[in-house]
Amino acid sequence: MVKKTANPDIVYPVNGIKLSSIHSGMYNSQRLDLAIIEIEAGSSVSGIFTKNNIKSPSVIISKNNLNKMNPKYLIINSGNANAGTGKKGYEDALQYCQYLSDETSTDIKAILPFSTGVIGERINVEKIIKFIPALIGNLNQASWIDFSNAILTTDTCNKIISKKIKINEKYITITGVTKGSGMIKPNMATMLSFVATDLEISNNKLKELLNTATNISYNMITVDGETSTNDSSILISTGKSKLSFEKLSKIDKESFEKLLKDVFIELAKKIIKDGEGATKFITINVKKIDSKINGKKIAMSVANSPLVKTALFAEDPNWGRILSAIGNSDIDINDYTKIEIYFDDILIFKDGEIYVNYNEEMAKKYLKNKNLIINIVFNTGNSSSTVWTTDLSYDYIKINADYRT
Amino acid sequence: MVKKTANPDIVYPVNGIKLSSIHSGMYNSQRLDLAIIEIEAGSSVSGIFTKNNIKSPSVIISKNNLNKMNPKYLIINSGNANAGTGKKGYEDALQYCQYLSDETSTDIKAILPFSTGVIGERINVEKIIKFIPALIGNLNQASWIDFSNAILTTDTCNKIISKKIKINEKYITITGVTKGSGMIKPNMATMLSFVATDLEISNNKLKELLNTATNISYNMITVDGETSTNDSSILISTGKSKLSFEKLSKIDKESFEKLLKDVFIELAKKIIKDGEGATKFITINVKKIDSKINGKKIAMSVANSPLVKTALFAEDPNWGRILSAIGNSDIDINDYTKIEIYFDDILIFKDGEIYVNYNEEMAKKYLKNKNLIINIVFNTGNSSSTVWTTDLSYDYIKINADYRT
Repeated sequence: MVKKTANPDIVYPVNGIKLSSIHSGMYNSQRLDLAIIEIEAGSSVSGIFTKNNIKSPSVIISKNNLNKMNPKYLIINSGNANAGTGKKGYEDALQYCQYLSDETSTDIKAILPFSTGVIGERINVEKIIKFIPALIGNLNQASWIDFSNAILTTDTCNKIISKKIKINEKYITITGVTKGSGMIKPNMATMLSFVATDLEISNNKLKELLNTATNISYNMITVDGETSTNDSSILISTGKSKLSFEKLSKIDKESFEKLLKDVFIELAKKIIKDGEGATKFITINVKKIDSKINGKKIAMSVANSPLVKTALFAEDPNWGRILSAIGNSDIDINDYTKIEIYFDDILIFKDGEIYVNYNEEMAKKYLKNKNLIINIVFNTGNSSSTVWTTDLSYDYIKINADYRT
Repeated sequence: MVKKTANPDIVYPVNGIKLSSIHSGMYNSQRLDLAIIEIEAGSSVSGIFTKNNIKSPSVIISKNNLNKMNPKYLIINSGNANAGTGKKGYEDALQYCQYLSDETSTDIKAILPFSTGVIGERINVEKIIKFIPALIGNLNQASWIDFSNAILTTDTCNKIISKKIKINEKYITITGVTKGSGMIKPNMATMLSFVATDLEISNNKLKELLNTATNISYNMITVDGETSTNDSSILISTGKSKLSFEKLSKIDKESFEKLLKDVFIELAKKIIKDGEGATKFITINVKKIDSKINGKKIAMSVANSPLVKTALFAEDPNWGRILSAIGNSDIDINDYTKIEIYFDDILIFKDGEIYVNYNEEMAKKYLKNKNLIINIVFNTGNSSSTVWTTDLSYDYIKINADYRT
């Protein structure tokens, strides 16, 4: 599969973060597939991992190690998820982590492994070990784009966001990378995401910021309702800017948090835009509902409905399927006649029936857009939730029927 | 769409049941699309209806009326679901029920309407009323096959099962009809199902038999994880055989119950075999688990996984997706290394990793079969659950992208 590179104009390095990527052959094609991130001492690192009940050994090791100390090295491979590989898969991961630990005189608990790719096959430890010295030798601050390419699987393009903000006469950087386009319904995390900033942030605050940002970004997207065995979302604060979050004014704190959320949301949207076989980028807003949790459940029920997704692929305003999907979540609906359904600002459904001035031709014309907005107004409260998703096309089948062959 | 007729060798009429079907034009093509069932006085009728929170007015009316008295007439149309039609849709259904009530001098509460088809469009009451006299005039015991054709939508064939059993020197008949091939994850019911027997059964016992039979049949199938707004499962006992269930010996009771369950399971399997775009009939057995409920949740998580379904369509033994789907249900899995996964009797996964003697070529060969069995053995208890499903093919997209256009 050809990897198109969709770089932003500029990628800002993050002081305190070095990266290195290499072609190890874990993927069949000639592409980068193995990478290391080196995190300078004194940094804070926080992580959120998949809620799938069957976790990759990489996830188990990384999660445990993160609870013990701040990591120094992240080692990431694509092409093999090292999941469903049992005790041997666990030992495999430990083995190459041990090698990296020896080569760098680093406590093995300061090394976190991440893997993405096919489930159920043993990972090639020898291949990884063989390339670790070269990876260490090539570490540098500028290699974010190579890194963003090395972690891809069925993605058709890399996904990177880099932003700067001026606070107290200093520039603070946030640079992040993500991957994923199928098996996407992250549950408290995405496939793989690594975001770093040079702002100094305590471990506790970092955890809080990561939770908030992940909940409004990666946990609000779905391609196919599938939560992978390997989802991980990592946030690193190196503190190399010599500016501390704690000491910022309230306004500066808010500006930084806003920027961080923007980075996460833009990365999450990139996954959806690259969703397997996607021909549409669909935003589902549930508005005026009694709680954000219920809003998310309703939006996810619509977003994951194969019948809604195929109708949008066909550009058919078959809104009855949206209504049925709303009814299919486990949220009790006392009076569905309060619900209004819109394509963007085209009112379709109101007072329990098709809107009297609904114009199907207008709706059909609207559905020809690549970016679609579905607004579902409950009129039962003041909360709202937004979920982003894709349509379901022939190419989703093609990609997933061909993945291993 | 051409309707292939897949009749069983013989369809036995059920004494006490008359049927009548007609082409009303509710469907565009020249086909039967409107029907009436007349149930002789003294019969018992039980029903189970959709758990979708947004129900068709037909479902609301039928459910309410069933609680008040045993019905005399069922009126069923295809081509329009009369769902998402609000107060007007409710009045529409009442209007044609009232007409049928007047024409037959029947209490309107003894009339149950059923609808299936597109959601969100007003139903054509005039068309229905126009054909009611002809429908009444043509009522007869032999018209089961016409009826089974009249209720179809995206189905490619009709679905009918008819069986006889000899008890106390008398023949007891069970004849049933169902429809459905998409929007299929019945929740306490199927799309539309009508089963009748001439055995005399009390209302309470009938309800119990219907619950049991539905739970092991229609509630164990899924095409696309969608529960429709109109699902209804009806069981009728006319008592015209002059044999009463209550008075049967224990063995005869069991024989009848077994036959009834078989009819329901065979009807449910017919829906899956005709699943939209299906190229495979897939049986998922979850065995040796702590409870049937958990077994069903695991099996449904695998059955509804688009990644599992596309892999099976591609005849690719990508069992890692099965493992990931097992992990994606909300059942806690303490130790996944106890789980064994088989394609039929081909052991794939054991002790947390790929089975040492697993032969992928054998698995690939097995997956070329049309009927596939996935066995998932938990080794944590003594319960088991079986779910039937389809693969996910290009044709599912085609059928659902084309449905209204």
